[in-house]
Amino acid sequence: MSPEPISDLSKLAVHTITTKPWSLREALEGYAAAGVRGITLWRDAIEGAGTDEAARMLADSPLEVVGLARGGFFPAGTESERQAAIDDNRVLIDMARAVGAPVLVLVCGAWPGQSLEESRRQIAEGIATLLPQAAEAGVTLAIEPLHPMYADTRSAVVTMGQANDLIDAIGDERVGIALDVYHTWWDDRLEAEIKRAGKRIRAFHICDWRVPTRDFLTDRTIMGEGCIDIPRIRGWVEATGFNGYHEVEIFSEEFWAMDQGEYLKRIVEAYREKA
Amino acid sequence: MSPEPISDLSKLAVHTITTKPWSLREALEGYAAAGVRGITLWRDAIEGAGTDEAARMLADSPLEVVGLARGGFFPAGTESERQAAIDDNRVLIDMARAVGAPVLVLVCGAWPGQSLEESRRQIAEGIATLLPQAAEAGVTLAIEPLHPMYADTRSAVVTMGQANDLIDAIGDERVGIALDVYHTWWDDRLEAEIKRAGKRIRAFHICDWRVPTRDFLTDRTIMGEGCIDIPRIRGWVEATGFNGYHEVEIFSEEFWAMDQGEYLKRIVEAYREKA
Repeated sequence: MSPEPISDLSKLAVHTITTKPWSLREALEGYAAAGVRGITLWRDAIEGAGTDEAARMLADSPLEVVGLARGGFFPAGTESERQAAIDDNRVLIDMARAVGAPVLVLVCGAWPGQSLEESRRQIAEGIATLLPQAAEAGVTLAIEPLHPMYADTRSAVVTMGQANDLIDAIGDERVGIALDVYHTWWDDRLEAEIKRAGKRIRAFHICDWRVPTRDFLTDRTIMGEGCIDIPRIRGWVEATGFNGYHEVEIFSEEFWAMDQGEYLKRIVEAYREKA
Repeated sequence: MSPEPISDLSKLAVHTITTKPWSLREALEGYAAAGVRGITLWRDAIEGAGTDEAARMLADSPLEVVGLARGGFFPAGTESERQAAIDDNRVLIDMARAVGAPVLVLVCGAWPGQSLEESRRQIAEGIATLLPQAAEAGVTLAIEPLHPMYADTRSAVVTMGQANDLIDAIGDERVGIALDVYHTWWDDRLEAEIKRAGKRIRAFHICDWRVPTRDFLTDRTIMGEGCIDIPRIRGWVEATGFNGYHEVEIFSEEFWAMDQGEYLKRIVEAYREKA
């Protein structure tokens, strides 16, 4: 059964990509004014301000930094490309530390010229290589299973089951999972694999699946405006003891074209009633 | 390991939707001229000619009728809508018999206002209701698991595992499965569930996943031009004893805009070398 509606905003966070037209400064001001409590930073928002300046703005803001999106993209056809991905993730771990992000979300990657099994092997290898640096920086690497429609180039990890299997294979419980309802709602194993994940769940992303969806990437919608039973999945996540933020992550050309302040009001209303 | 390349065309079939601009008559002539041996009929191709005339043309053609696409769409919000779906499937079973199609492919449906579990319950109920008529007509109802990107409105059955579970629940081995590489290639349980399905596999659809894919519905590509390891999956299917047609089913605005004869030549070449 689904849990009660959310009555307060204490766990509401928003990803900067959700309000993509806003600069980091605008996002910090706009989110705080709307009652949002947490912010998940996309790399471009930090790079737009510069890491040092971003860190200063974040230190001055009442918003809590929830995470940094996104590292990963480990698989590639050559050793040197895989090494370049590792190097880039090292930069991102440093960036996460600099801005105080406790989690680095990993979009793990896939490489169309090789099997998904081989891509997952390269992902496990990449994460294992990064773990010491991440631990030293106090940053949790969180595997985000993506929807199977992204299995060609974005992620060979397309279910919670595979994220759990991957952490088992790496053999290190410092690796976490970022669970997004958009990517996982269709899976009949979801409840069981959330239970199996337990404390591995370090991030919970919400939005809704638009019916019909018009674009592979940029047509997500606001909670309650699509077909995902978000409260039901939230109930499963809460049953693991998860007490972190509910991070609103929406890519939408339609909403990016709106006044972002009005859009954020709609998000906050939807969060109270439909998440 | 993948099996040997295909050296002859004896198992090559094409879905009429693949060459959508062609009438049924043009398809029958074009396929036979290109060396294709089987044809899977889409409803619109039959309705365009009229069922009786279509049946006559098919009887006169050297092509073997492999199946009819597509019935299903069982879930709905009201009893009367669900009954209308049953009635429509009854028409399709009669149509399959009239044109000599041994298989009716089912795109099972989903209904965004209810859970996927409830939709699957309604699908099982619908198929069970139709089984006596299908058996009497000599038509196998074949569940086609669709890609999870269609779980909103097209299919609550998104894996081979769910198709197997559904047949177990219906408890009648007359129900078959139509396996399409496009919908299932991403699934790490695919090999195991093909093995589990065994003789249930009554249709095998091939095409490729274009990288990147630009449209949710009409951007499939020709075998070997995408990221699916088709021979590997074919090997798993052949290991069950399957000896039926390899049906080329491609929806593509890009290819529909081509000369269909030239397009069919490309399909036949790709079939020999890449399927």
